[in-house]
Amino acid sequence: MTAPAENSLWGHKWGFADTYFKIGADRAVMMHGDRYALSGYAMPHLVPYIESLFDIQLDPDDRLPEREAINVPSVTPHPAFYDAIETAFPSNRYSFEDRDRLLHSHGQTTFEEVYKVLYRKLERVVDMVFFCASTEDAERMIELAIAHDVCLVPFGGGTSVSCALTLPPEETRPIVSVDMKRMNRVEWIDPKNLRARVQAGITGAQLEAALRERGHTCSHEPDSLELSTLGGWIATNASGMKKNRYGNIEDIVENITLVTPSGRLEQVAATSRVAMGMQLQPLLFGNEGNLGLVTEATIKIHPIPAQTQYNSLLFPHFDRGVECLYELAQSNYIPASIRLVDNYQFRFGQALKPAATGLKAIADRLKKQYVLNLKKFDPTQMAAATVVMEGSESEVRYQNDRIAALAKQYGALVTGAENGRRGYMLTYAIAYFRDFLASHHIIGETFETSAPWSQIQPICTAVQQVLDDKHQQFGLPGKPYLSYRISQIYHSSVCIYFMFGFYTKGVREPEVIGSKIEYDLRRAIIDNGGSISHHHGVGKIRRAFVPDTLSEASIDLLKQIKRAVDPANIFGIRNTLY
Amino acid sequence: MTAPAENSLWGHKWGFADTYFKIGADRAVMMHGDRYALSGYAMPHLVPYIESLFDIQLDPDDRLPEREAINVPSVTPHPAFYDAIETAFPSNRYSFEDRDRLLHSHGQTTFEEVYKVLYRKLERVVDMVFFCASTEDAERMIELAIAHDVCLVPFGGGTSVSCALTLPPEETRPIVSVDMKRMNRVEWIDPKNLRARVQAGITGAQLEAALRERGHTCSHEPDSLELSTLGGWIATNASGMKKNRYGNIEDIVENITLVTPSGRLEQVAATSRVAMGMQLQPLLFGNEGNLGLVTEATIKIHPIPAQTQYNSLLFPHFDRGVECLYELAQSNYIPASIRLVDNYQFRFGQALKPAATGLKAIADRLKKQYVLNLKKFDPTQMAAATVVMEGSESEVRYQNDRIAALAKQYGALVTGAENGRRGYMLTYAIAYFRDFLASHHIIGETFETSAPWSQIQPICTAVQQVLDDKHQQFGLPGKPYLSYRISQIYHSSVCIYFMFGFYTKGVREPEVIGSKIEYDLRRAIIDNGGSISHHHGVGKIRRAFVPDTLSEASIDLLKQIKRAVDPANIFGIRNTLY
Repeated sequence: MTAPAENSLWGHKWGFADTYFKIGADRAVMMHGDRYALSGYAMPHLVPYIESLFDIQLDPDDRLPEREAINVPSVTPHPAFYDAIETAFPSNRYSFEDRDRLLHSHGQTTFEEVYKVLYRKLERVVDMVFFCASTEDAERMIELAIAHDVCLVPFGGGTSVSCALTLPPEETRPIVSVDMKRMNRVEWIDPKNLRARVQAGITGAQLEAALRERGHTCSHEPDSLELSTLGGWIATNASGMKKNRYGNIEDIVENITLVTPSGRLEQVAATSRVAMGMQLQPLLFGNEGNLGLVTEATIKIHPIPAQTQYNSLLFPHFDRGVECLYELAQSNYIPASIRLVDNYQFRFGQALKPAATGLKAIADRLKKQYVLNLKKFDPTQMAAATVVMEGSESEVRYQNDRIAALAKQYGALVTGAENGRRGYMLTYAIAYFRDFLASHHIIGETFETSAPWSQIQPICTAVQQVLDDKHQQFGLPGKPYLSYRISQIYHSSVCIYFMFGFYTKGVREPEVIGSKIEYDLRRAIIDNGGSISHHHGVGKIRRAFVPDTLSEASIDLLKQIKRAVDPANIFGIRNTLY
Repeated sequence: MTAPAENSLWGHKWGFADTYFKIGADRAVMMHGDRYALSGYAMPHLVPYIESLFDIQLDPDDRLPEREAINVPSVTPHPAFYDAIETAFPSNRYSFEDRDRLLHSHGQTTFEEVYKVLYRKLERVVDMVFFCASTEDAERMIELAIAHDVCLVPFGGGTSVSCALTLPPEETRPIVSVDMKRMNRVEWIDPKNLRARVQAGITGAQLEAALRERGHTCSHEPDSLELSTLGGWIATNASGMKKNRYGNIEDIVENITLVTPSGRLEQVAATSRVAMGMQLQPLLFGNEGNLGLVTEATIKIHPIPAQTQYNSLLFPHFDRGVECLYELAQSNYIPASIRLVDNYQFRFGQALKPAATGLKAIADRLKKQYVLNLKKFDPTQMAAATVVMEGSESEVRYQNDRIAALAKQYGALVTGAENGRRGYMLTYAIAYFRDFLASHHIIGETFETSAPWSQIQPICTAVQQVLDDKHQQFGLPGKPYLSYRISQIYHSSVCIYFMFGFYTKGVREPEVIGSKIEYDLRRAIIDNGGSISHHHGVGKIRRAFVPDTLSEASIDLLKQIKRAVDPANIFGIRNTLY
């Protein structure tokens, strides 16, 4: 994993510009670049798999033309403000370049952002990019914004998938994107108390590199780890794949410095657990850019574990996997990460493999025979789980033994470390797949929810039903695609992570249709007991559902908190309910 | 453990009125009543132990005379309000009785509350007690309070030790204590998702009884478990002794209904983990009665564990115990509860034992010889840990084996289940000891902090030093007493729980001196990196330290939140920073 240098390696699509899927000779797909385990080999099974999923024929040469150049309007005039900027900061601290402005004017939401910047037109573009280098910079910038009535938008890794970075078209003031990525230092490490003070613009990859160099780890691993920042994690209330061992972001961060128009919201010192009256710090998670700039935070760190071990499980049916996870959730051997993927994702994982040859082909065939013929697993029903265990040697052994024993009680086969590692690592590479499909007229999105254990099946059934209905209603071609996994387990609930997509060839405004369908799917989730979001956040695409989650008085109080902190609405990104 | 019936079993002192320590024949102490393991037998070693600790002579007959009768002024007139109450509620829903009013006018803070109600005079007494029976009652009562400008004070178990229940003498409006204890029902249990909806006036004992009847447990076990309420736990941000397995209150509660002058603050449904923008629910923990009435909450429940097993460890020195706990905190075999007591508390536990006779006396002598002569433990240095493990048989075995192995690395002896159980259970009985000592001219208080691991030793040393200095400065008789334990462990920090006391015979206004010393001890804690409180809360006695914990902008925002929710300051108890 590598960290993005300032603007040089990333573009409008997901991730690093040197990494992309492309159909090559013989209709085999290749992931170009050399960053991932998936990179650099031919995948002959992938196109046929996609064609069968969507019931379509893919023409490798039929690709949507990109048209980003039309997207950059001129800078909103405000000479007094721009003069003040010039006086206050050196010239390498800000940019009016079209490319910088456009890159800072969207996140990674498919229908409303990426599809638009690549194939349509963004409604609003930032007027200036400010590269914040310190907490004092942040304070100075906010002062200027107040003095000149300018709108500020915090910008970290740009990986939001909730339209949290979509600029409000109705904003008439100049908008400055405050890029935090120059604040990427670990300020100190306290090895005894296992804490570090970190600048909030650091990416996950940078943070891990800096900590590991000194024998420690944070191990907060959202799918966006390579690109997203500590401040962004706090702003969205992020979840990490290894949260069972390391916690979600709200468990990791022990003191946030949020610079607001009313001053710094922070504690004098980090605290693990206190009774200090009402605590503001927990309120700052999920601020979604509405209140100010997260510039620094104190986080928990851990010694690098002695062992990291992978494993994988193959269940005859998704439901059996859920039952196994349910029992596991009540145990003391929950691994750092366990994820249960449905049959579609399992088969997708298979389709990403290279053509097997020689002994490997024979071994693969034998394994397949064992699973299908001897164990009688139905190839259209079986589901897989990847397991990551970390800790001391004996901790890992304890977990591995107990998990294997438990899984067998639910009819699972233990399919080993290599499948587990591969499944876990796929995550980082898979994110690039969305943009590949879009260029071939297939658009889709991921969405997720946390839901009580009892509601997993009702929610998945309802989402499938609504998707099928809508696909028909909109008269879309081919078949729609829906797949899901249980990506996190909790005492009372789980995170269900969905992917859906549909073929758009010949469809007018497919991004509008996609957006409508996504709304209806969320409606189905909430009507069946799911939540508004597990970790993506509300942003703008889910704001209509806030009244389904909170009492009126709660919504009103949140609005009053915003008014108290930022009366002039300097942070006018208008996420969640503002 | 039993639950207090409405007002019949409890008085101004701690706990049940039928339970109290008293010096009997031969200067042996007995705990009267039959509620506890300590009840009903003679403790011949206790008085000598106290005398040596404080360097005093105790005269069993020299007891402070109680004078509660002088404490009840007449009701503040407000005929319109009282008429409205009479119209709105049946007569069994409220009381103007002196006894009810006095019982609801203080908590259990030693110097400022219990000592005053028993031996001095309370500055302010509530004018009426309202027995709230439903969320609708709470709403109606708040409406009336707004209409008639009356002050409301939520009242649960009355076990606050932070002056959170001390009534502001400057409050000129009538004060109504809203007693929540009639709201004591478990409304529903969801066994699949392991949740229950519970009325917030339920005591810990009632909650456990109701859940266990149906095969479940919550297992939130603060020392006040028998008396304190779910609503009180939320209001103070309580911690439970078994938090390692069951969580602290903020980990347990998944939806709070807080009825405020601006409406109900609540979620539409409970959530385990969501990204829903800024979350208000975490802000409600530690509200300390400043915002409204907690009437109901959805909590996590657990199947009753297959096993509960106790163990105990004897360390040659407190510091070795701390080192062991530090390593344990990073492991996957942290037991439900582990507490490390210092040498004073260890010896106090020994002093509570009955006189040993026959074989038991011989066995005790042999054990002592083994520890002191063979193992060369210094009797004035050794420290003990009690361990409680819960879970499946194999989980408990895993923990027990690993903990024993770890402890031995730190020079500990494993001293078995019986000592562990006794140590754990002592907690509930010990709380009565404070009132016994006070009647014999010894007053003291408990206080606690959360502190980074590195600060345990500096804090304990500083607290001892300040106590010694102050004891001398105030010219107090005998020796002061200080004892502490590590009652909770976390990744980066621990809870240190202190007890201190001093002999007051011949001292003028000892409660004022005690209060001043407590302030100086907190100053020493904070100056050495400790927090304002781990679980007792801020109330009024620690409000001077809020600026040591939060930035100015944070304090200002908390004040604005209060104003937004309760503009007329109906909930005028003035805790924390209001």
